[in-house]
Amino acid sequence: MIPVMYARYLAGRANWIKGSALADVMKKASELQKKGRRLISLAAGDPDPSLIPRSVLGELAREILENEPKSVMYTPANGIPELREELADFLKRYDGVDVPPENIVITIGGTGALDLLGRVLIDPGDMVITENPSYINTLLAFEQLGARIEGVPVDENGMRTDVLEEKLRRLASEGRKVKFIYTIPTGQNPMGVTMSAERRKALLEIASQYDLLIIEDTAYNFMMYEGGNIRPLKALDDEGRVVVAGTLSKVLGTGFRIGWIAAEGEVLRKVLMQKQPIDFCAPAISQYIALEYLRRGYFEEYHLKKALPAYREKRDIMVASLEENLPWASFTRPIAGMFIMLFLPENASGMEFAGELMEKEGVVVVPGKPFYTDDSGINAIRLNFSRPSGEEISEGIRRLARLYREKFVS
Amino acid sequence: MIPVMYARYLAGRANWIKGSALADVMKKASELQKKGRRLISLAAGDPDPSLIPRSVLGELAREILENEPKSVMYTPANGIPELREELADFLKRYDGVDVPPENIVITIGGTGALDLLGRVLIDPGDMVITENPSYINTLLAFEQLGARIEGVPVDENGMRTDVLEEKLRRLASEGRKVKFIYTIPTGQNPMGVTMSAERRKALLEIASQYDLLIIEDTAYNFMMYEGGNIRPLKALDDEGRVVVAGTLSKVLGTGFRIGWIAAEGEVLRKVLMQKQPIDFCAPAISQYIALEYLRRGYFEEYHLKKALPAYREKRDIMVASLEENLPWASFTRPIAGMFIMLFLPENASGMEFAGELMEKEGVVVVPGKPFYTDDSGINAIRLNFSRPSGEEISEGIRRLARLYREKFVS
Repeated sequence: MIPVMYARYLAGRANWIKGSALADVMKKASELQKKGRRLISLAAGDPDPSLIPRSVLGELAREILENEPKSVMYTPANGIPELREELADFLKRYDGVDVPPENIVITIGGTGALDLLGRVLIDPGDMVITENPSYINTLLAFEQLGARIEGVPVDENGMRTDVLEEKLRRLASEGRKVKFIYTIPTGQNPMGVTMSAERRKALLEIASQYDLLIIEDTAYNFMMYEGGNIRPLKALDDEGRVVVAGTLSKVLGTGFRIGWIAAEGEVLRKVLMQKQPIDFCAPAISQYIALEYLRRGYFEEYHLKKALPAYREKRDIMVASLEENLPWASFTRPIAGMFIMLFLPENASGMEFAGELMEKEGVVVVPGKPFYTDDSGINAIRLNFSRPSGEEISEGIRRLARLYREKFVS
Repeated sequence: MIPVMYARYLAGRANWIKGSALADVMKKASELQKKGRRLISLAAGDPDPSLIPRSVLGELAREILENEPKSVMYTPANGIPELREELADFLKRYDGVDVPPENIVITIGGTGALDLLGRVLIDPGDMVITENPSYINTLLAFEQLGARIEGVPVDENGMRTDVLEEKLRRLASEGRKVKFIYTIPTGQNPMGVTMSAERRKALLEIASQYDLLIIEDTAYNFMMYEGGNIRPLKALDDEGRVVVAGTLSKVLGTGFRIGWIAAEGEVLRKVLMQKQPIDFCAPAISQYIALEYLRRGYFEEYHLKKALPAYREKRDIMVASLEENLPWASFTRPIAGMFIMLFLPENASGMEFAGELMEKEGVVVVPGKPFYTDDSGINAIRLNFSRPSGEEISEGIRRLARLYREKFVS
């Protein structure tokens, strides 16, 4: 028997990958839990399963599978027409965005939307601008496709458009071409910040000036707790520069894998051509559940009226706990989304701190470093407030603060 | 307002795509149906929804969503551990393949498995060997990734391994490197043929001699009507050369999007690293439904005992109808899968015939040409017998034969 040397069959692009820090943290946490350790997790990227109307969805699923033969079959690659229509109405009503159903493509969650856009737009070596830090999974997806990421720093008002403009001017003078700007303007992952109305306007003007596409990741648009006057980039876009990657994951649950691309022209056409060979279609049962969820007004009944106030309260608890226990520490104060970024003292290692926190205090957090596009962010820690209960949040922050004081406050 | 010229943002790889003939046929058929035309479709790639126990699956879905909070959350990127374990048992019992659960990665159907393997293995310009003809969706996925496809002809015993060997010898002498061999040995799509035991042995020997990986697409392994002594390539592989792309689509329904990769070593490691950024995970609800379906013995109860005999009968009806109505025509006689390939007289256009058949006789078939990797196959027509009823099959073939005689028999 000749042992196969697998490594030499691998594609070059496989080497562009760095490991996912989230996966590593989750793995270690699950090992500890297997040993019977009870952990408080502030590490999730999920909504709270107890705020998702699972019995209602279960009854929907039963009805659909029993009555709709198409629910077990392939759907069109761009999604079932009824869902695309319902989603267009939903986006008009709740997101202030006017997208015709034929410009919507249902994807495997927001992740599938972003990867597919990457496949359609990125050639190896292409430069892509993102926020710094940005969502690790998207950075990894774009890097897999050969993108070179240039990060633009983020403050409490979102992407620093002044720095963006300076960077674009410099890149243009060097003759280097940027493919697109990727942004999560609302409830940014991992920072938790929301781009101000002024910055949104500036971003669109800059994109127009430098003739760039923008990919707007709207994952947290339906988790806004304040700032109701802030509109999606797509709603402000009168040149067709904004391509949307959206998802129902934070509303319906991440497990259904229902996201979408809203695009037009050649981008839409290429997305439609490339999609079927990649995943054939999004899961039919999930598409029908999403359709009935929207059609029956459950978004209003269960998400807006029940889940959203609960998330707002959890955010308040986390902010208050941090202010009480770590008044000297720096952290973001989100008006949307599910994350707060906490900064340890300069040069302290978030990676090390997260490890110790899990071991000593049984609290799981995600180090911020892997979300950064450069060498910064060593001292960042991403905290999630959507998944844990209020009690877990207070207790988790109390323990985190204990370790923080032990290590950094003499 | 400056109109955006989308085309210049597109990645080069987007241009490697050819349109999908299946999508075109389906679109035209659906337009006719919207005009109220009743069509008989022999064009599907789906199982028969009436042979899928939809009420049972619906009740499963209700139970799962109500009782299992994880069913609405992200799952591990490689799938829920319980499903990987259950699937390992299932494969051992019903497919004769011994794969440990940790070597299984749950994917977005077989399509997701094949695309992911392509991403891990194919660099632009790499040569990949497939059957000629082969499954169009896989050809398109590999071509998107920049593969150059070399086809090996197929006869009633599957891939012509003598031609394969000759081709590999020639390529080696020219210094051209092949990345892997992609095959659907059982119930091949679109030919409907099954590779003989001798050919399977020969294929593995050739792969060993030329030190190549094999990707075995086992989509139709659970739709075998005869030839029970034929074993999957993976079961015969003692060198670890065979990577499996499997699916429950033909059993549970294509809409659930549950497939898998079975791989080892570096290939497995890279699949695990690349998967999360691409789709995060397969749909949780589908994974739990698949788990319970297997765990409760429904595969035996509903698929083996009920669906499989019904598909066998449909195959018998289609073969008998062809023999009765087109005794002079050439067509394949499948012992597995869901397709028969019918050949029109030499130089006749299958594309044209399919168009006329839909217009004049209201019967939808898929032209075989787009499945071919070279200029051959112009006269091929793919017929599906799994989805239509027995009556639709007889009537569809009767009408097809009428057009055939009208055009080709003087």
